[in-house]
Amino acid sequence: MTTYTKYLTFNTRQEHEYINITLEVAEAIEESGVKDGLVYVGSMHITSSVYINDAEDGLLQDIETWLEKLAPARPDYKHHRTGETNGDAHLKNLIMGHSVTCPITRGRLDFGPWQQIYYAEFDGQRPKRLIIKVMGE
Amino acid sequence: MTTYTKYLTFNTRQEHEYINITLEVAEAIEESGVKDGLVYVGSMHITSSVYINDAEDGLLQDIETWLEKLAPARPDYKHHRTGETNGDAHLKNLIMGHSVTCPITRGRLDFGPWQQIYYAEFDGQRPKRLIIKVMGE
Amino acid sequence: MTTYTKYLTFNTRQEHEYINITLEVAEAIEESGVKDGLVYVGSMHITSSVYINDAEDGLLQDIETWLEKLAPARPDYKHHRTGETNGDAHLKNLIMGHSVTCPITRGRLDFGPWQQIYYAEFDGQRPKRLIIKVMGE
Repeated sequence: MTTYTKYLTFNTRQEHEYINITLEVAEAIEESGVKDGLVYVGSMHITSSVYINDAEDGLLQDIETWLEKLAPARPDYKHHRTGETNGDAHLKNLIMGHSVTCPITRGRLDFGPWQQIYYAEFDGQRPKRLIIKVMGE
Repeated sequence: MTTYTKYLTFNTRQEHEYINITLEVAEAIEESGVKDGLVYVGSMHITSSVYINDAEDGLLQDIETWLEKLAPARPDYKHHRTGETNGDAHLKNLIMGHSVTCPITRGRLDFGPWQQIYYAEFDGQRPKRLIIKVMGE
Repeated sequence: MTTYTKYLTFNTRQEHEYINITLEVAEAIEESGVKDGLVYVGSMHITSSVYINDAEDGLLQDIETWLEKLAPARPDYKHHRTGETNGDAHLKNLIMGHSVTCPITRGRLDFGPWQQIYYAEFDGQRPKRLIIKVMGE
């Protein structure tokens, strides 16, 4: 069995950003030499997510609008008593998930034609880390 | 370490359908010969989900009603500028998740008494694929 | 490859409770002897969740309030025709997820500084089980 670990760092210009990281994950799989197994891709933070969906600009705007409705930025979260102002980013993370696991077959992401891996930042403009862990043989 | 990969195809009669796939996953585990490990079960699409919950008809109707409220079918998603009309199916996928990972112990799904694995279709009436990847020993 | 399995049982005093289980997961990893791999942590029930976020009391209250808004306790769920009254707990589980997978590096959870693993009970006051499965080498 082989394991291979890689870290990425993001420092987004915007507070919210959706970054397609499919190529970076594919690269890590290639570097690992793993031909069959699983790859875990996870945010190391609690105000950003990793999810799988379509690389389509309109949809990314729809997701942003929709998340703002389901988990709105508001001044009155109890979490803000700590001095933080990012309560909504924690809740957006909970809807979208902190990580994905993906199958690897014949050395590649075993994906359908539209699956893309995204890092979704909800509290950016500072360095945030992500971990990729490949496991297989 | 052993890995074993299997694909299922669904072509639902309805646009939305909830299909219990627990037996198919159990079968794949048996075919793999893996006695201890993990099984990944994931949609290869971005408008259908795999989730774990109860096999109870009333609950399936509750889930459908609830998802329609949280991620309603609407004409005005920006994603629809591409000619698609399934913006809501992408958002329903994001709530419900694209995949599950499940534990295998003594050659079987190590589940509690009510856990069942479902494929949830939100944009059906055409062939859609799912991947099962068993990994363990 | 090594696998290691451990079960925890919770019997919460309250119907809803959020329990930090990060130390228990770290302990299971240590007991397993696995230095590099993945750990799966999953509820064996369909009315409680495992998720990753911040160990901050205000945020836990925000999550509780927010979940009650997105998936409210109501008398009229169709699931209640079975005699159950916990329809909302099933839906809360679907938002929050039934399990997490986490990376292990050098024998420890490879986490950022604020990531904590929580067991979230939405239908407690009776014994509920959770499974930890460590896999790696």
